[in-house]
Amino acid sequence: MLENITQAQLKAMTCDELTALSEEIREKITSTVFKNGGHLSSNLGMVELTVALHYVFDFPDDKLIFDVGHQCYTHKLLSGRYQNFDTLRQKGGLSGFPKREESLFDCYNTGHAGTSVSAALGIAKARDIKGENYNVIAVIGDGSFNNGLVYEAFNSLRLLNTNILLILNDNGMSIAPTVGSMHEYLEILSDDFAHNQKRERHAKIFERFGFKYDGVYDGNDLPVMIEKLKEVKERLKTESVILHIVTKKGKGYSFCEENPEATHGIAIPKSESVESEYSDVLGATLIDIAAKNPKITAVTAAMTSSLGLAGFFERYPTRSFDIGICEEHATILCAAMASCGLKPYYAVYSTFLQRSFDEIIIDICSQNLPVTLCIDRAGVSGADGETHQGVFDLSFLTMVPNLTIAVPKDVDEFKKFLYFSAQFDGPLAIRYPRAGRRVFSSSAPIELGKWEELVSGDGKYAVLACGERAITHALAAAEELYKKGIHIKVVNARFVKPLDDEMLSSMPEKYIVTIEDNVKLGGFGTMVDAFFADSDKIIKNIAFPDQFIPQGSVGELMDDYGVNGKAIVQAIKQYENR
Amino acid sequence: MLENITQAQLKAMTCDELTALSEEIREKITSTVFKNGGHLSSNLGMVELTVALHYVFDFPDDKLIFDVGHQCYTHKLLSGRYQNFDTLRQKGGLSGFPKREESLFDCYNTGHAGTSVSAALGIAKARDIKGENYNVIAVIGDGSFNNGLVYEAFNSLRLLNTNILLILNDNGMSIAPTVGSMHEYLEILSDDFAHNQKRERHAKIFERFGFKYDGVYDGNDLPVMIEKLKEVKERLKTESVILHIVTKKGKGYSFCEENPEATHGIAIPKSESVESEYSDVLGATLIDIAAKNPKITAVTAAMTSSLGLAGFFERYPTRSFDIGICEEHATILCAAMASCGLKPYYAVYSTFLQRSFDEIIIDICSQNLPVTLCIDRAGVSGADGETHQGVFDLSFLTMVPNLTIAVPKDVDEFKKFLYFSAQFDGPLAIRYPRAGRRVFSSSAPIELGKWEELVSGDGKYAVLACGERAITHALAAAEELYKKGIHIKVVNARFVKPLDDEMLSSMPEKYIVTIEDNVKLGGFGTMVDAFFADSDKIIKNIAFPDQFIPQGSVGELMDDYGVNGKAIVQAIKQYENR
Repeated sequence: MLENITQAQLKAMTCDELTALSEEIREKITSTVFKNGGHLSSNLGMVELTVALHYVFDFPDDKLIFDVGHQCYTHKLLSGRYQNFDTLRQKGGLSGFPKREESLFDCYNTGHAGTSVSAALGIAKARDIKGENYNVIAVIGDGSFNNGLVYEAFNSLRLLNTNILLILNDNGMSIAPTVGSMHEYLEILSDDFAHNQKRERHAKIFERFGFKYDGVYDGNDLPVMIEKLKEVKERLKTESVILHIVTKKGKGYSFCEENPEATHGIAIPKSESVESEYSDVLGATLIDIAAKNPKITAVTAAMTSSLGLAGFFERYPTRSFDIGICEEHATILCAAMASCGLKPYYAVYSTFLQRSFDEIIIDICSQNLPVTLCIDRAGVSGADGETHQGVFDLSFLTMVPNLTIAVPKDVDEFKKFLYFSAQFDGPLAIRYPRAGRRVFSSSAPIELGKWEELVSGDGKYAVLACGERAITHALAAAEELYKKGIHIKVVNARFVKPLDDEMLSSMPEKYIVTIEDNVKLGGFGTMVDAFFADSDKIIKNIAFPDQFIPQGSVGELMDDYGVNGKAIVQAIKQYENR
Repeated sequence: MLENITQAQLKAMTCDELTALSEEIREKITSTVFKNGGHLSSNLGMVELTVALHYVFDFPDDKLIFDVGHQCYTHKLLSGRYQNFDTLRQKGGLSGFPKREESLFDCYNTGHAGTSVSAALGIAKARDIKGENYNVIAVIGDGSFNNGLVYEAFNSLRLLNTNILLILNDNGMSIAPTVGSMHEYLEILSDDFAHNQKRERHAKIFERFGFKYDGVYDGNDLPVMIEKLKEVKERLKTESVILHIVTKKGKGYSFCEENPEATHGIAIPKSESVESEYSDVLGATLIDIAAKNPKITAVTAAMTSSLGLAGFFERYPTRSFDIGICEEHATILCAAMASCGLKPYYAVYSTFLQRSFDEIIIDICSQNLPVTLCIDRAGVSGADGETHQGVFDLSFLTMVPNLTIAVPKDVDEFKKFLYFSAQFDGPLAIRYPRAGRRVFSSSAPIELGKWEELVSGDGKYAVLACGERAITHALAAAEELYKKGIHIKVVNARFVKPLDDEMLSSMPEKYIVTIEDNVKLGGFGTMVDAFFADSDKIIKNIAFPDQFIPQGSVGELMDDYGVNGKAIVQAIKQYENR
């Protein structure tokens, strides 16, 4: 019955029918995610709540905002996207996140944590200003609830003088188990099922901010959810409400229930060969470095395992800190530890580092402190789409004074950079993709600001390539051109900052191609353009265009946007004809 | 006795002597600030607390962190910087903010709000890891206490398992009066002086996060402060404490006490002629636009008046939102309102916009929503130094897809851009300095991505100038060169994004100079370099170098760093000799 379900049909269903529908949804999600990859556990936990929301509220007139957004699969299935659900997370297909471009039922795009309460308040305020009348609902997990944005939004609820419903979906997990005092507090509330009076006293925190608190309820119990949402819908006419529910991440699929962290995101094995994961190298190498240096510490924001640091955390518990989804706080913690002579490593995905931008400038770099940023998932990162591509980091980091930026060509060189970092006394960023697909044979020792010539050409053309993906393409292009009698130089531009001024200044080639796995504006190529601005060098920058890059596999995206060997060959051929 | 005071002498003083010392400090601060400019009210309010801190704790062994940092004057006077205090905020002189480079007594540099608790936790943790033994104290105002970073730090206190003292200095003010539910809550605590039991129940919020709460005390009462700090120092051995004090902003100087907002920062009138303030134009123009368009809303983060929006807020209270020092939340509120068809303006200082970087990318631009960012204090901003220069915005904004960036050449053109913005259906940033020093006679109508030729040259040299300061220098250089028979083109590059591709493509000049009031890397000039990368144009970029720019007057800084007409003349002369 799920296949062509309308909002009207759903609202006419009996409770038994809704329960059957929920099971159908669960099956559809599971089978699709095992085929396409995606977020499994969080979506399985959300089925009943979402069915109840669609039963009680009137979408798309009412507005529903998902914090982070990866738990929206049931919502998609119930809002006319069943037919396309097989395309989930595939190139050109349905997004795994809410997308306004995709459906009227998605009113606000999300991807990074903690934005939903602010967004709900903005939408509710717009409704009030325009004299409209609908309900605004944000659904947030306890992991996101750690983020400072939530506090900022809470703090302004009374000030904004509007009504929203905030559903706090408490499953005890971010990607990793949720940490922190707010989490402990939520646990106290949840443990308190039987003692309503005590809970009411406890819940005063929320009431201080103007929310009426109602909880804790079993979010996987469909009749309870329907009843509660009906009640709350009435209350929304006069007040803002937090509905605190507990759900089981991975609900209904026992392997997921038992392994929520491992099944948070399901990745589909690719046919392309993968040599290794950069995160494994980070973990192993940092453990080794820390064994000799007691000043090494590691900080993460709720994704220790996926960054490869589970082993480090186990080995050095007193020097390891997962402080929840608080990227700004994590950055300052590192800066402050460094100000006292420690040597902190902040490991983070490229896209989430954007949250730390001001703290990178002010706390780390203006104080010139030896914090090492280990930036994982740099470059296009695939199926999560626009909000998760790591294609901006080179651009927003190159402009920061005092920062050194390294881009290893393979996992071996990454390891060398980590040993280099241990001796390096300043702010350092190392950016790398998730998967290492090959290891190059050459291996010149790391020297600050010195690049490595991989192929020597005949002095006419040089390709400056930045990072494993770019270098792989550059070498392929060199080989292809070699067969045609064109001998190009290929350089591993492993420092984006400082550039290898000496090599650049003495470069005989008039024609240069740069290639990188980042947007063009402000990135590596642009740095080279600026270096040669007052010369007569002819430069072609190959990089991602000035657009948001949608979902797709890494290979597809690099081909679609022309960040590949073909583009290099084309550029050189154009030079030949010039 | 203040002149050469040592820590030992201070600790040997009687309470009467300390009171006299406080008065001397107050006089010194007042006389210096009226001469050099600076933060007055906040520093006058902090005198007794700071004297008591120096009396009870042992600096620099103990560590003291000031949130935001502009309230550190007494601390500077008591830590060996009396002799240089006359150089406060002047070029080469003492900073108005804590600076590690300046004194061992300054352990952590601050400038932007909300970082002190995170920094204190990082320092305390470093102490624990290194097995050292000292006290860590953060002082935060109630304005900063609204920032989400504070919540993130609170949330991890138990997790980090360390002890700090947090002094919450409650004066009811940010720059503007503090707003929000946390502020209301602090008021309840403060009003409760007599009812200790009730206060203890209220204070549970802090205890949830692992802080013992102690308050509320009169922070301007020196004996009370000494007694309380002594008590708290003992408690710090076993627990973290929040000491909640109330101080009077501007204490001891009646004009300040009565006008804390106007005397938050004292600016010294400059000899240079100032035509007008961009903020006045923003306020007046937005009022006019909003009169015709009910969808216009305005959002600020705790600095409504200094952004020129006090009148707007008064005129349109239901469409105006000051949500406290919450730049990220402010940005999302705007995006969400825009997603519902409103037309929001977010006004903010350039340096503080750095906090919204991720939200500009994800919430505003990836959804392509018509939010207008009004970026005040862009370019070098003067005496506040490194943490407040607005020299990064062009670099971190040009890289963001979907964003249009406008840089008006004077207040008149700013007004035109505001009318342009009202019709513009996409993300738009307008950046401008504080003061408008001149109005140029020409005034071509605004057209998206179209520049304006101000002086037509003879086809050999072109200067592309971005913003009022740059254009002023470019015109002066053109005049000087004209006298020498060199006729250069001067262009008002009023869109940094998109560039005027048409004008650039058809530009006959081989030699180009760009000039802007921003760092070079990633800025306007770099965009031009990239545009011409595959041509044989010879380009010289004049911009701020890849360094943090210290305090100084705008004129001094532009001269010192060679962002001026002289540099243009020099560049053209070098071209002549080429």
